[in-house]
Amino acid sequence: MHALLLIAHGSRRQASNDEVRDLTQALKQQTDDQFQIVECAFLELAEPSIPDGVSACVEKGAESVTVIPYFLSAGRHVVTDIPEELQKAQDKLPQVKIKTAPYLGSAQGISEILIGLSKQAS
Amino acid sequence: MHALLLIAHGSRRQASNDEVRDLTQALKQQTDDQFQIVECAFLELAEPSIPDGVSACVEKGAESVTVIPYFLSAGRHVVTDIPEELQKAQDKLPQVKIKTAPYLGSAQGISEILIGLSKQAS
Repeated sequence: MHALLLIAHGSRRQASNDEVRDLTQALKQQTDDQFQIVECAFLELAEPSIPDGVSACVEKGAESVTVIPYFLSAGRHVVTDIPEELQKAQDKLPQVKIKTAPYLGSAQGISEILIGLSKQAS
Repeated sequence: MHALLLIAHGSRRQASNDEVRDLTQALKQQTDDQFQIVECAFLELAEPSIPDGVSACVEKGAESVTVIPYFLSAGRHVVTDIPEELQKAQDKLPQVKIKTAPYLGSAQGISEILIGLSKQAS
């Protein structure tokens, strides 16, 4: 089984963390064939941590975990902190294959989404 | 003329601010009919500020400015700080119509983008 793990920064504000959890639910409903397990994890300020998120996927039977950094820019978190946390997870769980997708802000489709949002301005 | 103003948080890391500027250029090329002016502004840590970004649009001839918050969650920045900065701009420039679009993280299309990114994982 293949898992998708959405990694967000985490916030002191629970509503922000819940937005990530809601998005994870939406992803779960949209990725039927490709990923049988869809979870989220947080770099800091919220649970589960990244290693715990990877462990949760493995406990549910994942042989591979595809990580998507839910970040807008390639700052320290994306370049250094998330890879370090993933390495900790990999050291603890050598049997799982961890792959990392490009971070959200690098996606081509962002500008179309922004143009769509501009039409809803009031 | 109508202006689109992308508002990002701003970073100490210039490369992150430049990502926003590059995205602004991409938006400029994609919005030909709707917006004749496309600019970006930063809440903090980078220039131009939000009031300066609105002023720049007006100086280029904008009668209306549509603001898009380039933020992932409806935290304090989106709910309080950006509206306060926009109010400052409005007080200085009462003739311009400022409209605000929903913030990026609220867009329906985000989950499709994430699924697309997952296919590029390595």
